Amino acid sequence: MVIRPSQHWFFRLLDWHGSVLSKITFRLSLNIFISIIAVLCYQWYEQLGVHLTIAPFSLLGIAIAIFLGFRNNASYSRLVEARTLWGTLLIQQRNILRNIKVILPNDNNYQKEICQLAIAFSWSLKHQLRKTNPMVDLYRLLPTTILKDVINSPFPTNRILLHLGFKIGELRDKNIISDVIFQSMNKELNLLSDVLGGCERISNTPIPFAYTLILQRTVYLFCTLLPFALVSDLHYMTPFVSVFISYTFLAWDALAEELEDPFGISANDLPLNAICNTIERNALEMMDIHPLPMPLKPNKYFNLL
Amino acid sequence: MVIRPSQHWFFRLLDWHGSVLSKITFRLSLNIFISIIAVLCYQWYEQLGVHLTIAPFSLLGIAIAIFLGFRNNASYSRLVEARTLWGTLLIQQRNILRNIKVILPNDNNYQKEICQLAIAFSWSLKHQLRKTNPMVDLYRLLPTTILKDVINSPFPTNRILLHLGFKIGELRDKNIISDVIFQSMNKELNLLSDVLGGCERISNTPIPFAYTLILQRTVYLFCTLLPFALVSDLHYMTPFVSVFISYTFLAWDALAEELEDPFGISANDLPLNAICNTIERNALEMMDIHPLPMPLKPNKYFNLL
Amino acid sequence: MVIRPSQHWFFRLLDWHGSVLSKITFRLSLNIFISIIAVLCYQWYEQLGVHLTIAPFSLLGIAIAIFLGFRNNASYSRLVEARTLWGTLLIQQRNILRNIKVILPNDNNYQKEICQLAIAFSWSLKHQLRKTNPMVDLYRLLPTTILKDVINSPFPTNRILLHLGFKIGELRDKNIISDVIFQSMNKELNLLSDVLGGCERISNTPIPFAYTLILQRTVYLFCTLLPFALVSDLHYMTPFVSVFISYTFLAWDALAEELEDPFGISANDLPLNAICNTIERNALEMMDIHPLPMPLKPNKYFNLL
Amino acid sequence: MVIRPSQHWFFRLLDWHGSVLSKITFRLSLNIFISIIAVLCYQWYEQLGVHLTIAPFSLLGIAIAIFLGFRNNASYSRLVEARTLWGTLLIQQRNILRNIKVILPNDNNYQKEICQLAIAFSWSLKHQLRKTNPMVDLYRLLPTTILKDVINSPFPTNRILLHLGFKIGELRDKNIISDVIFQSMNKELNLLSDVLGGCERISNTPIPFAYTLILQRTVYLFCTLLPFALVSDLHYMTPFVSVFISYTFLAWDALAEELEDPFGISANDLPLNAICNTIERNALEMMDIHPLPMPLKPNKYFNLL
Amino acid sequence: MVIRPSQHWFFRLLDWHGSVLSKITFRLSLNIFISIIAVLCYQWYEQLGVHLTIAPFSLLGIAIAIFLGFRNNASYSRLVEARTLWGTLLIQQRNILRNIKVILPNDNNYQKEICQLAIAFSWSLKHQLRKTNPMVDLYRLLPTTILKDVINSPFPTNRILLHLGFKIGELRDKNIISDVIFQSMNKELNLLSDVLGGCERISNTPIPFAYTLILQRTVYLFCTLLPFALVSDLHYMTPFVSVFISYTFLAWDALAEELEDPFGISANDLPLNAICNTIERNALEMMDIHPLPMPLKPNKYFNLL
Repeated sequence: MVIRPSQHWFFRLLDWHGSVLSKITFRLSLNIFISIIAVLCYQWYEQLGVHLTIAPFSLLGIAIAIFLGFRNNASYSRLVEARTLWGTLLIQQRNILRNIKVILPNDNNYQKEICQLAIAFSWSLKHQLRKTNPMVDLYRLLPTTILKDVINSPFPTNRILLHLGFKIGELRDKNIISDVIFQSMNKELNLLSDVLGGCERISNTPIPFAYTLILQRTVYLFCTLLPFALVSDLHYMTPFVSVFISYTFLAWDALAEELEDPFGISANDLPLNAICNTIERNALEMMDIHPLPMPLKPNKYFNLL
Repeated sequence: MVIRPSQHWFFRLLDWHGSVLSKITFRLSLNIFISIIAVLCYQWYEQLGVHLTIAPFSLLGIAIAIFLGFRNNASYSRLVEARTLWGTLLIQQRNILRNIKVILPNDNNYQKEICQLAIAFSWSLKHQLRKTNPMVDLYRLLPTTILKDVINSPFPTNRILLHLGFKIGELRDKNIISDVIFQSMNKELNLLSDVLGGCERISNTPIPFAYTLILQRTVYLFCTLLPFALVSDLHYMTPFVSVFISYTFLAWDALAEELEDPFGISANDLPLNAICNTIERNALEMMDIHPLPMPLKPNKYFNLL
Repeated sequence: MVIRPSQHWFFRLLDWHGSVLSKITFRLSLNIFISIIAVLCYQWYEQLGVHLTIAPFSLLGIAIAIFLGFRNNASYSRLVEARTLWGTLLIQQRNILRNIKVILPNDNNYQKEICQLAIAFSWSLKHQLRKTNPMVDLYRLLPTTILKDVINSPFPTNRILLHLGFKIGELRDKNIISDVIFQSMNKELNLLSDVLGGCERISNTPIPFAYTLILQRTVYLFCTLLPFALVSDLHYMTPFVSVFISYTFLAWDALAEELEDPFGISANDLPLNAICNTIERNALEMMDIHPLPMPLKPNKYFNLL
Repeated sequence: MVIRPSQHWFFRLLDWHGSVLSKITFRLSLNIFISIIAVLCYQWYEQLGVHLTIAPFSLLGIAIAIFLGFRNNASYSRLVEARTLWGTLLIQQRNILRNIKVILPNDNNYQKEICQLAIAFSWSLKHQLRKTNPMVDLYRLLPTTILKDVINSPFPTNRILLHLGFKIGELRDKNIISDVIFQSMNKELNLLSDVLGGCERISNTPIPFAYTLILQRTVYLFCTLLPFALVSDLHYMTPFVSVFISYTFLAWDALAEELEDPFGISANDLPLNAICNTIERNALEMMDIHPLPMPLKPNKYFNLL
Repeated sequence: MVIRPSQHWFFRLLDWHGSVLSKITFRLSLNIFISIIAVLCYQWYEQLGVHLTIAPFSLLGIAIAIFLGFRNNASYSRLVEARTLWGTLLIQQRNILRNIKVILPNDNNYQKEICQLAIAFSWSLKHQLRKTNPMVDLYRLLPTTILKDVINSPFPTNRILLHLGFKIGELRDKNIISDVIFQSMNKELNLLSDVLGGCERISNTPIPFAYTLILQRTVYLFCTLLPFALVSDLHYMTPFVSVFISYTFLAWDALAEELEDPFGISANDLPLNAICNTIERNALEMMDIHPLPMPLKPNKYFNLL
């Protein structure tokens, strides 16, 4: 996720890492190369009686734009849903901790245990979605007995949730909380479970591969043929206009592909590290445990990871 | 659902089974054939004073692209909704089992019974949606008395849910759980019922047949006439450009039709077997019943079923 | 709702009753007639210095296609919402009956009464939405005292719901169920009330009439003028291309109008009879009341009503 | 909201009050006038070497159509949301009254008081949204003490809700209902509060004014310049085609503006009087208070207000 | 948010501050300047054999319009979601206060404390979203002990919510309210927490920067090249038509960017001050604390902030 100081619009247009320019450089260069060929060969292939006019490409280009619009919509919805799920995670953590603090205002020990399980849940979810090793974070946050059980499980995040459930079950067994309070807390754990399941769903179910394939085939072929259709009108201007049109189509295609997996670490993905850090800071602050960890800073490309 | 190792983009463009290419081969061949006819007959039908120009086809093609966009949207929404329902199924199974484990931490027998009913529910739903025989899976999972009742029912999945209800009702009758806990568990069963009813709705209610029919008629006719409109400009290039435009339209149409029934077994449908396997692994793991079944592997076309 | 055996795609294209072809025959014939006039008069009106070129029609046609896309979206959303409401009805009936069976496993009488009220609710809703006489179905299902009260009410479906409420209130008055169980059952009745109110809303509130009017005026006029714009390029081909373009636009317009009232009995509307039948079969089966009524079969046009 | 007997499609096309024709007459006349000027001046301004061709207008027209589609979507969503809120109001009134009747079947006095407060809530909301004086309706429905408190408040509808809360609070104070029942009734009042707040939000927050402004500027200018672009091809036909294209664009723009405030009294707005009347009839019928007020009839333009 | 007296449509078209005209003046002037250059150089660069025709720009313009439509949709959804969250805030405040008044009708002190915490919550949220100093408002509303704790926290709005939780917890500790009432009040606080988390999410997560960048690059380049493509047809009319088309595209782009952060203080953003003022007036009125603060008036540009 790119968080940059608001620059003058002119400098923004020159930005390299923020947009997908770095990814499509090769294809744009290829396009310029083909355009030059088209200009050079123009005289020759016109004598063959072949006229590639812009008309069929106009029809095709608009159809492709409509389909690209559809695919971007689908990719962007996934990003929005993923972001909303992580937003819900922060909200639920706050609600659970507020509830604990209000009901057991004096049991600092218990508060701290719940707080650390909740924080561990978010870091573990992050590691699960990015397929990285959660060991460092879990070791930092979990007591040994729980840690051992969690890291031996094939589904560690869900296991942490189970332990959160046991903690609340203990209170009920000891008659510290009534069934009414127990089931209201249990509901809040269910909402964490929704976040976990929702993120797993987005992560495991890409947009049907055929959409990507059909669009990329047509976009690439369209950009390849375009110079030959433009050359009869534009002559020397062909490479310039052709690369401009190609940029529009290739960039939208590349961006849709990048957004499709919102849990990655490219420039336009969700800054899961920063969100986990925010959740941890919020949780500790609510429990009055100081000092808080520092908020994460964007890297030199203005990206948060 | 296609889960493939991330290949180089160049090889992806040659993919045969991932996209719908195999389905539309016949129609694309037909299109090339008609294009060749158009090229051969061009001289002759121009003398008749008939000019099929690209202009009306441009208008029509864009209109069809807009309508195809609409239909793809509708089909894709069904896929997303179906996937979300199966995601909810996994989430609810976890919630029910966590709740049981927290409330009855020592009653292993009871835990196991609920766990097997829950797993049977997902397999039975899969078989119902794909109209296959659930016998093998139910036999493996259900105790004899329940099995008999379930397979004699015309609505076996709903019957399993009823037995889940009876199990929870027993706890209430024996005063092991209070009414508050009972109704919170009952609500979780209601959410399973939502999944069941939602999947049945998607499965039994296709997108209105007229949408499919109107679009296919216009797309097929459009692709058939297109070569005659292109030939006056493109001459020998007609087959190539015509098959390219036809591919774009036919592939989107074919994909929308494929996605319409998300519970099928074609390459872009939901991998219900893999999801059921995941649900079973999760459920058994939560109950500490080992060894877990192996996770499913994609087949040689990188497809999960 | 058209449920047809999967035919070969070629025969599907010739389908007459499934699509809206039968509705727009007159207008398509008119279009052919005007096209022929355009061809015949072409020489004459060209001498007047009037050139109706395709360009302004291209602009207009695309604009109309965009607006048709919008209207189809709105109509289709209504269909989807209506179908979801009826899906919820089935789900809620199951939940209510499961709840009753679990809580009062031995009171067969009471179970049967609730079951029949629930079934009567769906049939009554169907008759209300289609403005048909519910008497036959209500007489079959309701005990005399309730029947009398229901048919004398101007809002019979809501009255049945009130009686469902009384039934549950009785249990509470007799201390058979606690307030916790009562209010959870009452919530399930509220969900039936949502279905009732939602269906009434869709049925009583059409898409603003001006949308229909503006679109139909522009579509009809567009199709009427189109032949005159095509004739200068297409000559003898005018009727053919003109009727093809007109079919695309008229069929989408006609389908949007048909879907606008999803509770009607045309080919693409919801099969309310079949859904009510399914609800009845499910309810009776859950109560173990046999034999079940037969499932409905599609008519000779493959339509369920 | 236009509720008209289904006419023959031919007569519908001539409808004056149903569509927005009456609103855009002036602008359409202006367009014809400009078209005539364009036809008359054509010879003269062609000698100046200025060719306004249709091509840039085609591009602009399609862009405007896309943006109009977006704005209509936004306006229509507001209408749908507003209608859904009023549908929820009816549903909630029924639920509250059913709940009261089931729990206090014999306390007719109390039932009547709640019923009248509920009815007063809907009328008061209607008057608030249309900025009319609620006095007549409130005087008819509320007891003097409450009436006085309500009309002295700057937020009368919310005040009625507060009194509904007090009524339910009384039952709890007198131990007629338990906390469980109280909070379930309180939740139903919260849903009324959602309707109130939702309607206020729609009413107080128009679509950003800039959307309206940008679109109207471009649409008006587009329609003004269009005749000059059409005249070189169409000559004497210019006024006719120009007014046709302008009608399409102006009517969609005017309709979007009309729908933006769904609580107004123009032909395509929500019939709040009729809905309030329906709510009152439903509420009285549930309480068995007869005779019911008459249902509202559409006026001579087939409009319900 | 622009709230203006409904003017005559003619004067509205001249509006300067309501639309984004003031923001894009520079770019429109640049466009006129380039158009004039295009007109002046036309003879010269035509001799070079370069024809920039409108056809490729038509294709590109429509593609850009489709993508602009997508981006506006995304921006507008954020505005709608943000507005809905603030609407929910008002609704929840009313619900919490009504609940308190109904349950503790005689404890004026307690009512007032809750009321002031609730009001402080909204002002604090406003200051957090606009990154302004909340001190003045918090000082006015909070008692000293809470004030100190809140302003020392890095998350003051969430801290206020925690104190609302403590207040309700006190009632439970003192056995004034049962667990059932406590958890229903706690749920209402959770809904405030949803609003807080939702607003933070919108504020911290812009639309992926690449969308803005890709669109602005293509829109600016498109508008820069357009005059050269128009000049061969339009000659002296080029600046006029070019600036018109550019206005359409630049204004939509600028508006989408403005709406992206709905919590800002530009003309089309949410009037958070006015909403907070409304919330405060509602809360005080419900607690019968008079006189109410005055409602906010729009400034001289008809804007509410």
